[in-house]
Amino acid sequence: MNKAQIIESVSVQMPERRWIHTQGVMSTAIELAKRYGENPERAELAAIIHDVAKYWPVAEQAAYIKQYSLDEQVLQYNKELWHAEVGASVAKEKYGVHDSEICDAIRYHTSGRANMTLIEKIVWLADYIEPNRDFPGVNEARALAETSLERAILFGLDQTIVFLIEKGKIVYPVTIEARNSIVQQLNMK
Amino acid sequence: MNKAQIIESVSVQMPERRWIHTQGVMSTAIELAKRYGENPERAELAAIIHDVAKYWPVAEQAAYIKQYSLDEQVLQYNKELWHAEVGASVAKEKYGVHDSEICDAIRYHTSGRANMTLIEKIVWLADYIEPNRDFPGVNEARALAETSLERAILFGLDQTIVFLIEKGKIVYPVTIEARNSIVQQLNMK
Repeated sequence: MNKAQIIESVSVQMPERRWIHTQGVMSTAIELAKRYGENPERAELAAIIHDVAKYWPVAEQAAYIKQYSLDEQVLQYNKELWHAEVGASVAKEKYGVHDSEICDAIRYHTSGRANMTLIEKIVWLADYIEPNRDFPGVNEARALAETSLERAILFGLDQTIVFLIEKGKIVYPVTIEARNSIVQQLNMK
Repeated sequence: MNKAQIIESVSVQMPERRWIHTQGVMSTAIELAKRYGENPERAELAAIIHDVAKYWPVAEQAAYIKQYSLDEQVLQYNKELWHAEVGASVAKEKYGVHDSEICDAIRYHTSGRANMTLIEKIVWLADYIEPNRDFPGVNEARALAETSLERAILFGLDQTIVFLIEKGKIVYPVTIEARNSIVQQLNMK
């Protein structure tokens, strides 16, 4: 499928407000790609598709993960993680995206992971700070993103982890590994 | 070795203030064991030995971990974790403790882990709340320990994780798994 067809297909699978969010992620991903030396078209394509499965019924997401032999580990954790796993597979299977880095940017856009690639970092951060986001700290994250991808991501991951802890929710260990990895990258600079 | 001999051997390997801490962990572990149905003598023995390697030079701790083929994963993380791994092995090799649950209570007294046994929970918590401890929140942890081992441990693990995040330090993923496991146990009650 070409970009226009993918946009058409993705946008009808979510409510309008989520498509507006997706458009924000697209523009922010392009901007970050230009700033940090990634191909903007690759970043945009990952952004277009990242939430494709977000509004699928959760039972359908779980069934898809099992059917396509995806990482079933996520099924033990927060349902919010499932759509990313599904989305990465849909990108490949339905939209014909064979650039594995784009698919991985979709797969890890919620959890993050250790040793994220540049495009993974860009999509994770774009999703966190796109212009429609409004939560305490988002402006600090946006300011950090002006000068350091890693500092902005660390800020976001830390906020996410502390939020989950305060709410008594499970913290996905892969997210801790993502955060530790960024700490190490910053310490090496 | 008998208990008096182990006490003699352990106490000379640390400064007096640390031995005072250990005595606090011993009495608190006995108290928690009585409250929550563990054998107080087993809990006390784990408490006696838990910090035996705390004041070994770190190079010696690392060498011991390699020599005895212990879990080298901890070497990638905070040095504070190493003495627990070493202590568990010293308990077995030097003091002849062949009760593996006692050794594991020593091994996981700093990190915790998923699915902790009763004695592991008791030693972890005794180390956190013994009477000589003085840090913000310790009295809240002590109060929780009166009625729920799990609530007190969750409070302590959460405090520890948030502290590490605020300091920009690496968080050991095993500690996250410990914390998630306690959240699940509490949700099932």
